[in-house]
Amino acid sequence: MVDRQEIENWFKGLQDDICAALEQADGKATFHQDLWQREQGGGGRTRVIAEGNIIEKGGVNFSAVHGEPPAKMLTALGLEKANFYATGVSIVIHPVSPMVPIIHMNVRYFEMDNGVYWFGGGIDLTPHYVVDEDAKYFHSQLKNTCDAHSESYYPKFKKWADDYFYLPHRNETRGVGGIFFDRLADQDGFDKKQRWEFVKAVGETFAPTYIELINRNKDKSFGDQESYWQRVRRGRYVEFNLLWDKGTKFGIDSNGRTESILMSLPPQANWVYDFQTEPNSPEQTTLDKLVKGIDWV
Amino acid sequence: MVDRQEIENWFKGLQDDICAALEQADGKATFHQDLWQREQGGGGRTRVIAEGNIIEKGGVNFSAVHGEPPAKMLTALGLEKANFYATGVSIVIHPVSPMVPIIHMNVRYFEMDNGVYWFGGGIDLTPHYVVDEDAKYFHSQLKNTCDAHSESYYPKFKKWADDYFYLPHRNETRGVGGIFFDRLADQDGFDKKQRWEFVKAVGETFAPTYIELINRNKDKSFGDQESYWQRVRRGRYVEFNLLWDKGTKFGIDSNGRTESILMSLPPQANWVYDFQTEPNSPEQTTLDKLVKGIDWV
Repeated sequence: MVDRQEIENWFKGLQDDICAALEQADGKATFHQDLWQREQGGGGRTRVIAEGNIIEKGGVNFSAVHGEPPAKMLTALGLEKANFYATGVSIVIHPVSPMVPIIHMNVRYFEMDNGVYWFGGGIDLTPHYVVDEDAKYFHSQLKNTCDAHSESYYPKFKKWADDYFYLPHRNETRGVGGIFFDRLADQDGFDKKQRWEFVKAVGETFAPTYIELINRNKDKSFGDQESYWQRVRRGRYVEFNLLWDKGTKFGIDSNGRTESILMSLPPQANWVYDFQTEPNSPEQTTLDKLVKGIDWV
Repeated sequence: MVDRQEIENWFKGLQDDICAALEQADGKATFHQDLWQREQGGGGRTRVIAEGNIIEKGGVNFSAVHGEPPAKMLTALGLEKANFYATGVSIVIHPVSPMVPIIHMNVRYFEMDNGVYWFGGGIDLTPHYVVDEDAKYFHSQLKNTCDAHSESYYPKFKKWADDYFYLPHRNETRGVGGIFFDRLADQDGFDKKQRWEFVKAVGETFAPTYIELINRNKDKSFGDQESYWQRVRRGRYVEFNLLWDKGTKFGIDSNGRTESILMSLPPQANWVYDFQTEPNSPEQTTLDKLVKGIDWV
């Protein structure tokens, strides 16, 4: 029987493991931890890292909260009044180098005291410069993880990520996508144990995959042009998170801890009116690939 | 009879006058104009300025659009299906110097073909460093403009601005407020002509008031500390506009022209995890004044 205590403990261990792996990969910066409690129940361990060799700003957050859901959320979810419990790990890493991609991961578990439960999560990659082989590697890693649990997972969750990590007002995807899933429960022949094994596997895919992408790109040279473009792309990241991301919106609407929620924002972002890329430039080539439906594998 | 053609023409003239006044105050940069058309009807004149002596990035936009409102908007406004017409001028100015405040102004007119109409708008000031005498001057200017049309206006619209330009997730006002009003029509003994005269007066208050604030502050010295704080405060400006501002949300949801809507974003913004000001510092003194209900006059 998979119970919430087991899930919570495993997520805490995942946070520890990922922080250790990222510190080792960075070689300079270490995580700073803030423990926090939520007035209405529960709390978290926010861990942030900054000004490293590789990582300019990042967060690896664990939380486990419970209580009565905000009215807005009950309405949105179509649920009766009941107590909820939610736990998860959320990560966003903004690298120093524009040649290293931004990455985001989330794994989460939600339950209500009426027995309703689900898992959600995903990993998506936002390169400042899309490198086809890296996108292929990234998606292959995710596909392998998915396939080990169900061949139905990757195609479905890859499309879900394309649709979710999308900026309608820019007609751009956030990056090269990844996988996204929500409300995984006892459906389609899967039971809770099987869903949980899959979610754990997603969590474990994060560190080796991202560290491989770091190692492939960290020594590439770059100059002002690339750093400038990085800040423009970070501006798009801010737009997605503040305008469209449901997790951010839910966190803010439910009086979540603002500094933990907004750790996802980049250290610095630029906005230039009507920014235009040069034809055939690496920047334009990247933009051309920020579209839904690319089969990277 | 105040009709939409008269309003539209006057708003265009206001845009011209404000651009001319700001160019003169800046002394270096000039406005660049983009004319645009909206597929569903109407269009606009987006005018942006960048890299000036005084203004680092700013926009003074005119638009006049018409057609069928998006379904989302009809629901939000509780309106039957009908054609709408909307025209207005929107301004946001991000100065080079952290000692010069950010300013925002909007004046707008909306009508439906069923005879419903209203005016809306406002001006609000976001100093990176609050200067009490400047906030007093700014609010006195607004109060004088309001009082000439009704003594009921300033207290009501000043409170409305305090409530509107507020970041709940930070428990901070955006700046020192100003005035905000919406849905002004034939109510409380006012007729359309009187509402229009007031809206024109608000538009005319903008340039002399902001230029006075520029002149008071533009020669003050500043260093890295002040510029850093400016970028943190600009981050808050981004958070307000993308998370809370109804105008931005409506523009994005109704497929407005993204570059015109997001001209309000600063040239550069920083996010630092859990940024803390030094006790008794000018930054802390400013934060202490970002609260609702201060009687600046």
